Amino acid sequence: MKHYLGIDLGGTNVRVAKVTEDGQILQEIKAPSFASESAEVILENVFKQIDAISDLDTIAGIGFAVPGPVDQEKGWMNMASNIPALKHFPLVERVKSRYNIDVVMDNDANVAGLAEALVGSGKGYPIVAYITLSTGIGAGIVINGQTISGKNGYAGEIGNIIVDATLPKLNHLNHGAVENEASGTALVRKARARIDENIVHAGQLFDLVKEGHEEAIKIKNEMIDDLSIAFSAVAHVLDPHVFVLGGGVMKSADVFLDEFIESYKERVHTQMRNVEFKKAQLNEPGIVGAAMLPKSKGY
Amino acid sequence: MKHYLGIDLGGTNVRVAKVTEDGQILQEIKAPSFASESAEVILENVFKQIDAISDLDTIAGIGFAVPGPVDQEKGWMNMASNIPALKHFPLVERVKSRYNIDVVMDNDANVAGLAEALVGSGKGYPIVAYITLSTGIGAGIVINGQTISGKNGYAGEIGNIIVDATLPKLNHLNHGAVENEASGTALVRKARARIDENIVHAGQLFDLVKEGHEEAIKIKNEMIDDLSIAFSAVAHVLDPHVFVLGGGVMKSADVFLDEFIESYKERVHTQMRNVEFKKAQLNEPGIVGAAMLPKSKGY
Repeated sequence: MKHYLGIDLGGTNVRVAKVTEDGQILQEIKAPSFASESAEVILENVFKQIDAISDLDTIAGIGFAVPGPVDQEKGWMNMASNIPALKHFPLVERVKSRYNIDVVMDNDANVAGLAEALVGSGKGYPIVAYITLSTGIGAGIVINGQTISGKNGYAGEIGNIIVDATLPKLNHLNHGAVENEASGTALVRKARARIDENIVHAGQLFDLVKEGHEEAIKIKNEMIDDLSIAFSAVAHVLDPHVFVLGGGVMKSADVFLDEFIESYKERVHTQMRNVEFKKAQLNEPGIVGAAMLPKSKGY
Repeated sequence: MKHYLGIDLGGTNVRVAKVTEDGQILQEIKAPSFASESAEVILENVFKQIDAISDLDTIAGIGFAVPGPVDQEKGWMNMASNIPALKHFPLVERVKSRYNIDVVMDNDANVAGLAEALVGSGKGYPIVAYITLSTGIGAGIVINGQTISGKNGYAGEIGNIIVDATLPKLNHLNHGAVENEASGTALVRKARARIDENIVHAGQLFDLVKEGHEEAIKIKNEMIDDLSIAFSAVAHVLDPHVFVLGGGVMKSADVFLDEFIESYKERVHTQMRNVEFKKAQLNEPGIVGAAMLPKSKGY
């Protein structure tokens, strides 16, 4: 059985793991990523962690998950707000030339989607739309075992899909972008403005929903509406076989998931209502998915 | 050079053509499709047209374009409003068993997208989003030379993407579906209600825009807004390398296309503004694209 190296390079930590081709983690290392340092410092640190993995010469390929859109041709990040020095830095080439091995890189949502598609809840489905409902909203689209990255690495950046163009502009996203209306961050913003300014995470809002708090229920209903408009847009582009749902907001799935699915079904063609909704099942989709990247390319 | 048979089976006519692998039409036959008759009558008629093609034994595969979503596994149409008898009729299997040759079928928008992606304006681009602006609005998504059909054949049915959920429901589509706001049919509906009830096609509205008619310009601006919201949704799912635009409304591209592209760019991430917009270039994307279907599958 082949082994791959999966590297999850984030704004705080870098995690490196040796993973079997069916997604089992054999060895794992975690260290600070020095994300605010220069590209060379970040890279040397990554090399150090890689070198600590045993039997490196048996590895069939290296995969990187990074927190931002990746230009697949150039092998670098097009935007890197959490690791600024890596914007347009030729990471793939540098790692490839040091270890003389194939290296593939993609953003963390695509990579998590790949992990779920190959060895998680999406296994066996031709078109997997993995969607993370977290502080932000993003997707990883996987078709026949390949991540769809797009021209600029922005495929799956569904947080910017417009659900109500009449809303004011809040940040770099579109007026009424779904991420500004239905993400964990958006829920907290609404709950603080409309219920209690001491609310700090979405779980508190969902607790109020369970207690029957009227305004909390209204916010939850708005979220369901906005999510179903955005998911419906995704569905009318891809008609996926399965939506795999991950991210922190899914911890409160019992409060909204069934209602959301009903709302979704109202907003797609009748014949599309058979799509499956599944919860993400992997604990470490980042490193496992990163390791699956070279596998998905046939290395 | 390989030759393929492309068959465009529509609600009025069936067209059968022998096409080279680079999209040149060598021979073409057109006949009524008897779309309101039984499946057997329709099929016998298709066989008759196929049999009239010369040197059938040199054909490497047969492709069908049909006017509705196709279940790729079953090889039949999931919805067939223009050819009712073909809903759930095993067309692929029947043609395959008669000619003992590989047969592939997909809906007309996907097939036109494939034609443009392989031998038209989208040639050489990895991710092509072909969009037809006509009486309806639909897309054909082609990734690395393969049409994306989806679980139920509804991939690319972007006419149902919601651009304003507060609008009333007009038909089987969603409240505020882009097809009901920005298609040729929608433009005529708006122009008749708000300008002159004798208007019968969108070209008349665009003529009024050119003359500086205030309400016509308003309708044109609404169309641009609605289209850019929908295109932005498609882009944030796929980040395509090129949008290829076809359909009758594009005859008036000089009136709206540049403004539309500006509006689109305002609604995507800065780094995505480099997407190319091209006009569709094939005169007969249906039969050519149908012929490209077996080619795209390696037959």
